[in-house]
Amino acid sequence: MKFHIEKTSQSARAGVLRFNGTEVLTPVFMPVGTLGTVKAMDHAQLSEMGYRLILGNTYHLYLRPGEEVLASHGGLKKFMNWQAGLLTDSGGFQAYSLSSLTKYTADGVHFKSHIDGSPHFFTPEKVQDIQNVIGSDIVMPLDDCAPYPSSTQRLREGLERTHSWLERSHRHWKENGYDKTSALFSIVQGGVDPVLRRESAQFAASLDIPGHALGGLSVGEKKEQFREAIAISTSILPADKPRYLMGVGSIPEILYAVELGVDMMDCVLPTRNARNGQVFTSFGKLNLRREDNKMSSLPMDTECDCHFCRNYSRGYIRHLHKTKEILGIMAATHHNLHFMLHFMRKMREAILDGTFSSFKADWLERYRGG
Amino acid sequence: MKFHIEKTSQSARAGVLRFNGTEVLTPVFMPVGTLGTVKAMDHAQLSEMGYRLILGNTYHLYLRPGEEVLASHGGLKKFMNWQAGLLTDSGGFQAYSLSSLTKYTADGVHFKSHIDGSPHFFTPEKVQDIQNVIGSDIVMPLDDCAPYPSSTQRLREGLERTHSWLERSHRHWKENGYDKTSALFSIVQGGVDPVLRRESAQFAASLDIPGHALGGLSVGEKKEQFREAIAISTSILPADKPRYLMGVGSIPEILYAVELGVDMMDCVLPTRNARNGQVFTSFGKLNLRREDNKMSSLPMDTECDCHFCRNYSRGYIRHLHKTKEILGIMAATHHNLHFMLHFMRKMREAILDGTFSSFKADWLERYRGG
Repeated sequence: MKFHIEKTSQSARAGVLRFNGTEVLTPVFMPVGTLGTVKAMDHAQLSEMGYRLILGNTYHLYLRPGEEVLASHGGLKKFMNWQAGLLTDSGGFQAYSLSSLTKYTADGVHFKSHIDGSPHFFTPEKVQDIQNVIGSDIVMPLDDCAPYPSSTQRLREGLERTHSWLERSHRHWKENGYDKTSALFSIVQGGVDPVLRRESAQFAASLDIPGHALGGLSVGEKKEQFREAIAISTSILPADKPRYLMGVGSIPEILYAVELGVDMMDCVLPTRNARNGQVFTSFGKLNLRREDNKMSSLPMDTECDCHFCRNYSRGYIRHLHKTKEILGIMAATHHNLHFMLHFMRKMREAILDGTFSSFKADWLERYRGG
Repeated sequence: MKFHIEKTSQSARAGVLRFNGTEVLTPVFMPVGTLGTVKAMDHAQLSEMGYRLILGNTYHLYLRPGEEVLASHGGLKKFMNWQAGLLTDSGGFQAYSLSSLTKYTADGVHFKSHIDGSPHFFTPEKVQDIQNVIGSDIVMPLDDCAPYPSSTQRLREGLERTHSWLERSHRHWKENGYDKTSALFSIVQGGVDPVLRRESAQFAASLDIPGHALGGLSVGEKKEQFREAIAISTSILPADKPRYLMGVGSIPEILYAVELGVDMMDCVLPTRNARNGQVFTSFGKLNLRREDNKMSSLPMDTECDCHFCRNYSRGYIRHLHKTKEILGIMAATHHNLHFMLHFMRKMREAILDGTFSSFKADWLERYRGG
């Protein structure tokens, strides 16, 4: 993986990420395709739209369709017909959040499947092996993502486990030659404790590893804590490596994160909100189900040129959402992903033009209150 | 509306239907878009695929979004961005089948909404007015579709009501100038009673009306009864008018109907089955959820060149259906509609080539048992 920074605007960076024949412009927003599908999107359209990097989830894909099916189809990218970049998160967060009776040991995490209750055991090594079967371009290490809020003791415990597992992941990744085809990122933890966050970033920075991620944020902490945790991390992490903020999301969060030097983000918001009838527009969020959209012949977003904004009215898409029609979900999903891509492109241009701070102020105003 | 028959092969007909700038090749299969959306399909794709005539439903559209919304958007075609032909059925069948406390009087049908229980009253005239607001190219009269099985007395009652309502619909349609923009079809009823079916076809044939439909079939009657009722009707109905068999369907039913001189058909099967993971293929029906599709890298149909057959494997689409992902529904729906269109095209070519009877035998063999 090669990362080249074209331009900075204070801490914000406009760069290019290159790996396995794929080129990704940063800052980049990555749509989430948990089970090998970005929900309600045809991947050919996602690619035509301009996306080059999406997410899959190791925990979910390990359970369904499972390694045997993925291996027989030549990995997830061939399975799902996705010809660009793929990042998988490690499943540590899902093993903790979706499973009952999760138990951490020094060696790994025991959990029961949220589907059939069957028992499973993830070790740092096993998670690297699974991601190798999945065939990801960017792989994540198993980590211990402490819940928010957690005591300092719980955070420290989680941090030690995360660091020890990161070392083991890193070793296993190299020893098995996985480094020939994939890029391993660290995960910086430490919650919103400045001391622990610093310690974790320092540990991550000490490793010779292709990139770094920030975990455990946007989980309910205050805006100031969110920004402080990012600022501490990015001030320590090496400037020449890509930085990925996991599970973030909203327009204001993305603006703050990019301002603090984050290059990559993923979130289910554009796709999940779409299924609930909420779309992002150039003028803030819009709830399609609202009564006052009934007669509207305006597009979802008057400044958008996506397929559904060019061809369908708010009034019609409201009707689809009120009657629970799948086309309503398809329309809102397509629009939201188109919107995010173009929002990120405009942000990148602002960094290149040296106008990032006015871009940020403008969009914070449009998305006041979230 | 103009109907031109290019070629016949015994009773089977290959024709062209022209109305309001739209040209439809017959025999034609019409996808069902009950609520103003052919479920899980983008209409732009439906049009690109080659469809020129789809169905809407008066009962459903009257309840949601309602006449006020449809009128404010300039009719259903503008509302849903559909630039080709639209046929609406009258809602008589839904008022009967979906509503509780339906009551027929000589004047019309009282029913309660299946959504909120609100009381409504459809008269033959009102149903024509609603379809005028919807802006349909082909409109149907309110009818009394007796349940199957029904006593001869109930069938006769239904028939008399249907005929009286047809006359009123026809008069209202002409008096209001609806005949300038739409084509009204009759509905021939009479269940599987040969005497009543003949009487109904004779009554319909006596009217100067653009086309004729056959109702009340494919509702559980025997194959022989189904064919006899069609044969009686088509032997009486004028040869130069299009004939539309309502709510049919399956590959064998379509073959039998076309053989007996039917030109138009609609059915929810391709879209509904798709949502349940069942696709039509060149080799019969295929249940995508089946275990033995797990590792399959074959397309849904090896003889199909639709977008999803060109790009996605059975194994992947099975995974999507097993995990209830919307893309699985999108893929199966797209494929089934593509399949139906091409099946109808090949059937039309067979009529033109004079090879319809071997075409029919071949496809009946592929779809033995349904």
